[in-house]
Amino acid sequence: MTTPLHSRRQFLQQAALGSALVSYSLPRLAKADIDYRELLPESMTKAGGEFTNYGQPSPYEQQVIRWISANPDMPGNGVSWSPLHELQGTITPNGLHFERHHNGVPAIDPAQHQLLIDGLVDKPLVFSVDALKRYPMQSRICFIECGGNSNSSWRSQPILTAAGYAHGLVSNAEWTGIPVRLLLEEAGIKPEAKWVIAEAADGASLNVSIPLEKLMNDALLALYQNGERLRPENGYPLRLVLPGWEGIVNVKWLRQLRLSNAPAMSRDETAQYTDLMPNGSARQFSFEMASKSLITSPSQGMTLPDKPGIYQVTGLAWSGRGKITRVEVSADGGQTWVDAELQQPILSKAFTRFSLPWKWQGQYAVLQSRATDETGYIQPTREQLLKERGRHGFFHFNAIISWEVSEEGYISHVYPE
Amino acid sequence: MTTPLHSRRQFLQQAALGSALVSYSLPRLAKADIDYRELLPESMTKAGGEFTNYGQPSPYEQQVIRWISANPDMPGNGVSWSPLHELQGTITPNGLHFERHHNGVPAIDPAQHQLLIDGLVDKPLVFSVDALKRYPMQSRICFIECGGNSNSSWRSQPILTAAGYAHGLVSNAEWTGIPVRLLLEEAGIKPEAKWVIAEAADGASLNVSIPLEKLMNDALLALYQNGERLRPENGYPLRLVLPGWEGIVNVKWLRQLRLSNAPAMSRDETAQYTDLMPNGSARQFSFEMASKSLITSPSQGMTLPDKPGIYQVTGLAWSGRGKITRVEVSADGGQTWVDAELQQPILSKAFTRFSLPWKWQGQYAVLQSRATDETGYIQPTREQLLKERGRHGFFHFNAIISWEVSEEGYISHVYPE
Repeated sequence: MTTPLHSRRQFLQQAALGSALVSYSLPRLAKADIDYRELLPESMTKAGGEFTNYGQPSPYEQQVIRWISANPDMPGNGVSWSPLHELQGTITPNGLHFERHHNGVPAIDPAQHQLLIDGLVDKPLVFSVDALKRYPMQSRICFIECGGNSNSSWRSQPILTAAGYAHGLVSNAEWTGIPVRLLLEEAGIKPEAKWVIAEAADGASLNVSIPLEKLMNDALLALYQNGERLRPENGYPLRLVLPGWEGIVNVKWLRQLRLSNAPAMSRDETAQYTDLMPNGSARQFSFEMASKSLITSPSQGMTLPDKPGIYQVTGLAWSGRGKITRVEVSADGGQTWVDAELQQPILSKAFTRFSLPWKWQGQYAVLQSRATDETGYIQPTREQLLKERGRHGFFHFNAIISWEVSEEGYISHVYPE
Repeated sequence: MTTPLHSRRQFLQQAALGSALVSYSLPRLAKADIDYRELLPESMTKAGGEFTNYGQPSPYEQQVIRWISANPDMPGNGVSWSPLHELQGTITPNGLHFERHHNGVPAIDPAQHQLLIDGLVDKPLVFSVDALKRYPMQSRICFIECGGNSNSSWRSQPILTAAGYAHGLVSNAEWTGIPVRLLLEEAGIKPEAKWVIAEAADGASLNVSIPLEKLMNDALLALYQNGERLRPENGYPLRLVLPGWEGIVNVKWLRQLRLSNAPAMSRDETAQYTDLMPNGSARQFSFEMASKSLITSPSQGMTLPDKPGIYQVTGLAWSGRGKITRVEVSADGGQTWVDAELQQPILSKAFTRFSLPWKWQGQYAVLQSRATDETGYIQPTREQLLKERGRHGFFHFNAIISWEVSEEGYISHVYPE
């Protein structure tokens, strides 16, 4: 194998033993081109800045932003992408959680906001936000992924934008709220109720249909995101969180849950968020986001400075069907695979960070990652996905993503097949 | 028992069964004094606000801030407290992570910053931040607590400030960085090395001594906090994270690790962060933060609007020695206890959220929580702690905290004994 990948255990053992691999690589990284400055740095010669009531990132990190891509004729309709290629760990900080709005971010006074539960219930109920704050809450770390994430990968040519700006309509946070089941049971569910129409209080009057069963299972009416109240762009003051299901049904600015015996067949579940299949039919209600992974570093647009050199291949894997059980990495375009290490704890329907050291010898390479979830489902190649779904898709792209490494160490998005 | 506490399972079963308890309580909450407004809210009649590159909290949440308490003569020396009484879940968002600075927040350009490892090593090493970014990283969700957290509880009278502003020098985040062990092994540890002197690049030239064993065990050289790069007030560009150990040894703005055969006996490990014991001796190097818990809601300064009414008692528990195994709640000042539900997953040396529904009948009550960790250590009463440690303490207060509920539903901090 000309592009050796090393298991983390093997790497650490070698590090501990001071083996040839490590004495070859890490000290060279450490020395860099820098001498330690004997003089005190300026920061030690004076008092530092003030305390702050609410902190902000370092001014040296101003490039770490969401990338906005909105409709010029309707600036409230679009997305902003999480910079996954700049992040580490698994939590997405609230300031960088992806956005998808159909008509902008409503400014909602929580004292004026209400949630109505009606339709096929014994007793319609109205909740103020203050009343909801007194209900039992649960927390769950889970990802939310827009059904349109990675949509550029359906195009015939690979897009050359940074990993997060092509695949970052997915983020992962600790959501805290009330099990929706508790509220529905309080209203009393009529036996004929099968669907729930959820409506947002935004300028798009966004509404979608959700099977009642999902709301009774693991859905949360979230009020908190990573400990603090929801951000406006993530649904303040109330949003649905449906772990593992596509973003649009995680309705933000939630104002109504109407129980029904049939779906509403609204615009966003008929004209949009459906999948045109090879036989000309449209697949609807594809709620569950399938197993997927993405190498965040090294990735599109980065360069490898040392040749040869040791690089950490790292990325994220997630599945709407449960836990990630395995992530494999290939450096030869999928001919051979090595198991990556998975960061603990591995949580169901949440980001799992994988990593693997890679010794790059300076040759042409194609880096790929492939996730498997606890149902046994394996992330498909792009070729397999196109075979199943055709070439006219826009939503629900979850195939393997490939980063080409040139002999000069430049990383580009490619379609290898 | 006049103040019944209910196990979560019991509560949910009753909710599912529509029992007397629930029909008595929850619908009354739901109705509030509000009718559902048939007219569309204003937010649905117009386009919403713009996408943002980096999001901020809702303007309606401006009261959710860190509370700054600094020395008027030296404004860079002080603390800012996390508003734990306003937060939910277990993650502390980066903007609200507590601060403790000895001489302000240094503004450090990462391109100029270096880390030196020297002293009793085979080969001193200097690392640029860019070089460090290429090392293998691990993530860990853990709390950091200032050794001086809850220091007002040593006073003879209970302080009447909000829970977070008396006990919120503790926060919990996902930290990502390099196992310190890897870097020390690369430098080569001489056999006589037993301590490591860690120095910060701040205007206080803060330096502390850390047993080498801890750095070899689970210490991280953190570069990331909840996914993004460290905030300036939390050590940008580099900090030590020593899971479970008092805040001061989690050195921020780290510039040097010097291996030594003895501690440095610096100001912050002799004059400060030591415990004056009843026999007149001073306890030094009390690194490990003992098991502790805090009811965050209801808590000091809040009121219970409904009498009688159902309230969720919720809070946080943590231990520097491992996992929390049990949190008990009392509504009668410690005479009787009921097990609270612990939010999963329970992680070692991390915040664990507990909760329990409480039916308040309108009588005088004293709410308390008591944490047990996996070593079997049980959080002591204040009386027990004072007996062991005397009345002249300032650091390392971990006793049970008591919230008195008056017949009018007003919550106050009390010392019950």
